[in-house]
Amino acid sequence: MALVVQKFGGTSVGNIDRIRNVARRAIATQKAGNDVVVIVSAMSGETNRLLALAHEVVKVPDAREMDVIASTGEQVTAALTAMAIQSEGGQARSLLGHQVKVLTDGAFTKARIKAIDGSKIFDATKKGEIVVVAGFQGVNESGDITTLGRGGSDTSAVAIAAAISADACEIYTDVDGVYTTDPNICPSARKIAKISYEEMLELASLGAKVLQIRSVEIAMKYGVPVHVRSSFNDAPGTWVTREDKSLEDVVVAGIAYDKGDARVHVTGVEDKPGVVAELFGALAEKNISVDMIIQNATKGHNERADVTFTLPKTDLARGRPFIDEVGKRLGALEVRYDEDIVKVSIVGLGMRSHAGIAAKMFRILATEGINIQAISTSEIKVSCVVAAKYTELAVRALHDGFGLEKTVGPTP
Amino acid sequence: MALVVQKFGGTSVGNIDRIRNVARRAIATQKAGNDVVVIVSAMSGETNRLLALAHEVVKVPDAREMDVIASTGEQVTAALTAMAIQSEGGQARSLLGHQVKVLTDGAFTKARIKAIDGSKIFDATKKGEIVVVAGFQGVNESGDITTLGRGGSDTSAVAIAAAISADACEIYTDVDGVYTTDPNICPSARKIAKISYEEMLELASLGAKVLQIRSVEIAMKYGVPVHVRSSFNDAPGTWVTREDKSLEDVVVAGIAYDKGDARVHVTGVEDKPGVVAELFGALAEKNISVDMIIQNATKGHNERADVTFTLPKTDLARGRPFIDEVGKRLGALEVRYDEDIVKVSIVGLGMRSHAGIAAKMFRILATEGINIQAISTSEIKVSCVVAAKYTELAVRALHDGFGLEKTVGPTP
Repeated sequence: MALVVQKFGGTSVGNIDRIRNVARRAIATQKAGNDVVVIVSAMSGETNRLLALAHEVVKVPDAREMDVIASTGEQVTAALTAMAIQSEGGQARSLLGHQVKVLTDGAFTKARIKAIDGSKIFDATKKGEIVVVAGFQGVNESGDITTLGRGGSDTSAVAIAAAISADACEIYTDVDGVYTTDPNICPSARKIAKISYEEMLELASLGAKVLQIRSVEIAMKYGVPVHVRSSFNDAPGTWVTREDKSLEDVVVAGIAYDKGDARVHVTGVEDKPGVVAELFGALAEKNISVDMIIQNATKGHNERADVTFTLPKTDLARGRPFIDEVGKRLGALEVRYDEDIVKVSIVGLGMRSHAGIAAKMFRILATEGINIQAISTSEIKVSCVVAAKYTELAVRALHDGFGLEKTVGPTP
Repeated sequence: MALVVQKFGGTSVGNIDRIRNVARRAIATQKAGNDVVVIVSAMSGETNRLLALAHEVVKVPDAREMDVIASTGEQVTAALTAMAIQSEGGQARSLLGHQVKVLTDGAFTKARIKAIDGSKIFDATKKGEIVVVAGFQGVNESGDITTLGRGGSDTSAVAIAAAISADACEIYTDVDGVYTTDPNICPSARKIAKISYEEMLELASLGAKVLQIRSVEIAMKYGVPVHVRSSFNDAPGTWVTREDKSLEDVVVAGIAYDKGDARVHVTGVEDKPGVVAELFGALAEKNISVDMIIQNATKGHNERADVTFTLPKTDLARGRPFIDEVGKRLGALEVRYDEDIVKVSIVGLGMRSHAGIAAKMFRILATEGINIQAISTSEIKVSCVVAAKYTELAVRALHDGFGLEKTVGPTP
């Protein structure tokens, strides 16, 4: 007998019929001999409706009160799902964040989980009940309701799975797994049967939207086996697990792309210690997170340097006047902005033991005539910034070049 | 400096503009030198929307889960109201049933309050905050969410006012007070300035829908002064308070009518001990509450009796086959049902010391040619069942006959 956590997102509980499907799936899982804990999101559209209501009252609603409102979406779905399980012949009870309890810090609208008490869950499963937990929500030390930020139900699910030592955490979604790349732009993309936490984390950070990054971090920290799969069929999806021998042979597991960043090019600043620190220290103070940073010394009689970095497009309007001003203070010759870029990345554990993977990536892009504007690497990924118009071409070329349509990882 | 509880019903918080009005009123009350606790209902229509959602899942939803869903209505309003107070320049925080905490028994959908902890409320008011409490909801010993039944926000308000020893509990509603009778059918009806708990309790039980009965019981038990008034203007409404000298002079305070009952007439049952007990004992077992009961011995060679009683129309369909069967078992000659009735009542503390009030009521009805089908009396009320078609005529005749358009109680 296993203990299984099943998480259903907003589209999977988008109407009463779908909630009934969730109920049937949970009952079937229980009948197969498992204890079942279901985590649900708000019905799709509901969170937006609630936010709109709050924004009708005031442009910038108080974060504490925002969480009181937003958490009702999951509260309603949890109770409806428990009712649906009952109406399908099962036993069920809903539990809210403050009932479980999911203890978080006090950062309203983006709280982080500190501890979870599994005892109420075990009390219920022991009685043969399926427990339906409202995702996305917790409670701080003072008993105030908190929420975990958009997509937080994934985090709830994995954290609860970790807290109760579940044998698996199934994430049901509207896609049927993690793909080698976006099937919408690359028809030969294939579902990955098994991928390591590290690779999933890189892919999620680089734009693959299947799992929330924080949920992958928690799964990795506590070794929770995560199964990403479709709520509309019974096909096996993608297992996200600890790396093992079988995964190490895969050189490149997936190709990701991210159009969310803009590139900033600051030319001709003084090349002396502390200059770059001043620029990025100041950006950090404004809570603008910078991704790739490249610095080259410019040739010339004065020792000057060029600095290139990327930052989220959503932060550009806020950051721009500020970057201009720091650039001027540092004596920059010019500050250029480019929003028309994409970051294309290859991710794979096998890179650690295979030489020449980055070189192969650059060669593939060069063969297609794609100029690389910036490069950054980590142990298991290489990212290149290129002009946005090359997105599809670059992704397809890399997907084929690294033979991903053939090597999709071992079957589990 | 006083401590004031203000309760706003569903229509008073029916949209964002009205919520803003509630916020302004609370701030004005605070600025006048009071500590303010606001209790809110769900936005009008919201509770019905939530119930419909649950009924879409299952015809008879689990009561525990029903309360999880229903309580979100007040939760949203509480947070929106807190936001509105903040946006109008005040300080505010919402508190839910489990946060306050409003401890109830475990009777989901109709829980009764056992205790209220005022400490979180005082913590907030001490900091200058207006506290907005979600009405209608509580929490049982196990931390499950409970609700107090329809109209339960009145009960929340009065119970919280009692728990924190508030100086007044203002009930804001869409009428501007308690009237001597229903102004819709009696144009000379007048607003009562002051009425006793006992009278209000009788009026509420007899069909006046201004206050929930349980809230009046709690106000009476703890001596909470209740002020029923309009949320759309600043006119003083009706004070519901302990009886005092000024109130004792009022012979009849108000006229109520209730079309919610049906009459059952069982003729010719054996007139011997235990027969009536069997009928009503059996009805009680079915949880059907019977109101007026009249028994007469029928003249004739066999000692037989007629029994007449009233019960809620809503229980009639369920009770009817059952009453027929018991009637047969008791040897009744006939069982007749009449749904076309109204119960008209006069209520007043003064009846205790004035003789002949009931006789005067019968005389007034007789003068109008209205036949009385059943009578019941208590210390401070007389109720007559008459044919429903006489409703308006009976109410107006009694209102004028007892001079209510003149004696509307002392001004406070």
